[in-house]
Amino acid sequence: MLILGIDPGTAIMGYGLIEAGNGGTLQAFAYGCIRTPAELKTSRRLVMIYDRLREIIKEHHPDIMAVEELFFNKNSRTAMAVGQARGVAILAAAHGAVPVAEYTPLEVKQAVTGYGRAPKEQVQRMVQTLLGLKNRPEPDDVADALAVAICHASMASWPRRKTGVWRQ
Amino acid sequence: MLILGIDPGTAIMGYGLIEAGNGGTLQAFAYGCIRTPAELKTSRRLVMIYDRLREIIKEHHPDIMAVEELFFNKNSRTAMAVGQARGVAILAAAHGAVPVAEYTPLEVKQAVTGYGRAPKEQVQRMVQTLLGLKNRPEPDDVADALAVAICHASMASWPRRKTGVWRQ
Repeated sequence: MLILGIDPGTAIMGYGLIEAGNGGTLQAFAYGCIRTPAELKTSRRLVMIYDRLREIIKEHHPDIMAVEELFFNKNSRTAMAVGQARGVAILAAAHGAVPVAEYTPLEVKQAVTGYGRAPKEQVQRMVQTLLGLKNRPEPDDVADALAVAICHASMASWPRRKTGVWRQ
Repeated sequence: MLILGIDPGTAIMGYGLIEAGNGGTLQAFAYGCIRTPAELKTSRRLVMIYDRLREIIKEHHPDIMAVEELFFNKNSRTAMAVGQARGVAILAAAHGAVPVAEYTPLEVKQAVTGYGRAPKEQVQRMVQTLLGLKNRPEPDDVADALAVAICHASMASWPRRKTGVWRQ
């Protein structure tokens, strides 16, 4: 199963594709980020994000897109900007016939580190370890995108688990 | 000039088309709201909003879309949900080759009532009066969408005014 994890943002949107094998294997397939210049108007930036995600989806045909539910620890201005990018990312997935799964930050941390309140730094180290990467994925947005993809792989392999049911 | 005002939201998105004449005349052309059922998943709801807005744009060919910059007086969860819908609305405009103008709530209130801190109720009464409507547009989202369209008409007729320059 090929999972596309997304860490939404207008300035930087992290993405990470991982292949989750039946035996519980995880492999980083491709990852990176979409950057949009601050001097462009919002509509142009959102179009860039949409177009790039559509390309990634057309190129790799992921089975699912996983995205974090970010609704706290953020001020409302940031939340609005992240929400705009998130809406566009979800639309790009829907237009590419890719279903979307949402996970809370607690679920992501729990799945990646075994501890729902793990610090960000520890989550990123575990992403590197679980995927056997030589270097820590940079910037943080990429590691966060890979983390939510790993979370989906973990949830999907335990279909009867109570938390982490697909809510999208 | 035909202006499409938008009040973004996932459950209800208000829209209002007004025709602003050269002599400062304002006429409500069409208005209403797009509702999406809460039981549908987010991706489906965002697709519904996008598709309906694309239809409205194709049918009426607005010259501009005006949307409020909503980044305060909202909690971050609400802001995230509104942001998602707002991102999709801006994308629908961009895909329909309609430019987007953004105004702060203060600018909208100032333009519609002459007072930047006017209560919501007064803004809605003024929308009804300025457009010569028999009834107050309902729900509030529709009146708010018409208000931001009126704001654009007002700003566009004063090109040298310092505030309200097109930032999108």
